[in-house]
Amino acid sequence: MSIALYELVGKTDSLRFSPYCWRARMALKHKALAFELRDWHFTEKDAIAFSGQGMVPVLVDGERSVSDSWEIACYLEKAYPDSPSLFPGPAARSLSLFFKLWCEKELHPLLLRGLLLDVYHRVHPQDADYFRQSREARLGKPLEDVVVPPEALRDPLHAALQPVRGTLESSPYLSGEQPAFADYILFGTFQWARVASPVDWLEGEERIRDWFDRLLLAYAGHGAQTPAATPD
Amino acid sequence: MSIALYELVGKTDSLRFSPYCWRARMALKHKALAFELRDWHFTEKDAIAFSGQGMVPVLVDGERSVSDSWEIACYLEKAYPDSPSLFPGPAARSLSLFFKLWCEKELHPLLLRGLLLDVYHRVHPQDADYFRQSREARLGKPLEDVVVPPEALRDPLHAALQPVRGTLESSPYLSGEQPAFADYILFGTFQWARVASPVDWLEGEERIRDWFDRLLLAYAGHGAQTPAATPD
Repeated sequence: MSIALYELVGKTDSLRFSPYCWRARMALKHKALAFELRDWHFTEKDAIAFSGQGMVPVLVDGERSVSDSWEIACYLEKAYPDSPSLFPGPAARSLSLFFKLWCEKELHPLLLRGLLLDVYHRVHPQDADYFRQSREARLGKPLEDVVVPPEALRDPLHAALQPVRGTLESSPYLSGEQPAFADYILFGTFQWARVASPVDWLEGEERIRDWFDRLLLAYAGHGAQTPAATPD
Repeated sequence: MSIALYELVGKTDSLRFSPYCWRARMALKHKALAFELRDWHFTEKDAIAFSGQGMVPVLVDGERSVSDSWEIACYLEKAYPDSPSLFPGPAARSLSLFFKLWCEKELHPLLLRGLLLDVYHRVHPQDADYFRQSREARLGKPLEDVVVPPEALRDPLHAALQPVRGTLESSPYLSGEQPAFADYILFGTFQWARVASPVDWLEGEERIRDWFDRLLLAYAGHGAQTPAATPD
């Protein structure tokens, strides 16, 4: 059986900035599973219609398909119990779910206000209109009215990251001595920022940067192989 | 060896509202350890001077003393490895630390704006001046200027609790199928609210209330034996 992962790609092959796709990629690397990436664009809904919905990541494992990064992690954990656990121990899955919900509630809306135009400038040309229209409908205003200068986000981001800093002061990873899915959740968030935006969002966050750098280099530098954004 | 826990008590014997003392009590029950409570008031700094600081909970276990609820949990986990784990599995301790930091950053300041005068009215008479002065120095304003009506906190509390609700939709406890220290952290928060304030802070939060009720009844109703606040 072979595993394939449908992943969002921007206007060049190296523009892979979906935080959710990165969660799934790192989960696959953690499980030491070989997989093939299938490039996908926002407007290619037909290509993943088999999954019953219209967003990536979508994992295809033989006859099975699974969408949503959290569901993918849960699927891999169950389907591949003998490879390293994404939720090590009986409490890790629920505590990682709390972490995921926190991350999407506190960090993503904040970073979105910094990244939205950067992402817009990097989506595939065929996706640009779709991206603007779908995001503006969701946010209720033009992309340009959502985005604020990076300096305006520095303090709220620093405040929001306080529990992450405190945890990493006590252990090398959010999941303890070794990384696991909770780490990949936040890794996805900062990889989104790193690949989509030339701003250094971890300025002044040396402990978190050190953690992020270790994850970029994990699995033979899997994350680092996708280059950081260059200025527009 | 016998274990003692110094615990904050208010103006009557049943007014035990310290969230941090409740974390320690539930951790001791989880570990199935017998312990003796030693009543303590804010102004009795001399009674716990041996611990090298001035706050409760303080745990005394034979020759050892440990202060701070998180340190107490870590101590118990190490000293009593054969009883049920407070941090089950290699990722639970760090993910529970994240949860603790989140709880103290997001929930406590919010609930404090609802509870501060309720607590003030319930501290021991010998503590009242100390409580007002120390809190007003920390908060930079009179207690009366910090507190807002419960209705003003309903929406922000509901918003802040979203990741807790989402986690409890997926598993019966924050720590999975069984409660562990992360659950006792949040239990302490709502026990603080329940014992200090007659307001129903879990109104409309049926999933969280159900979880809280299960923990109140755990360990032969240990938490439920301390009565809920009655109106002033």
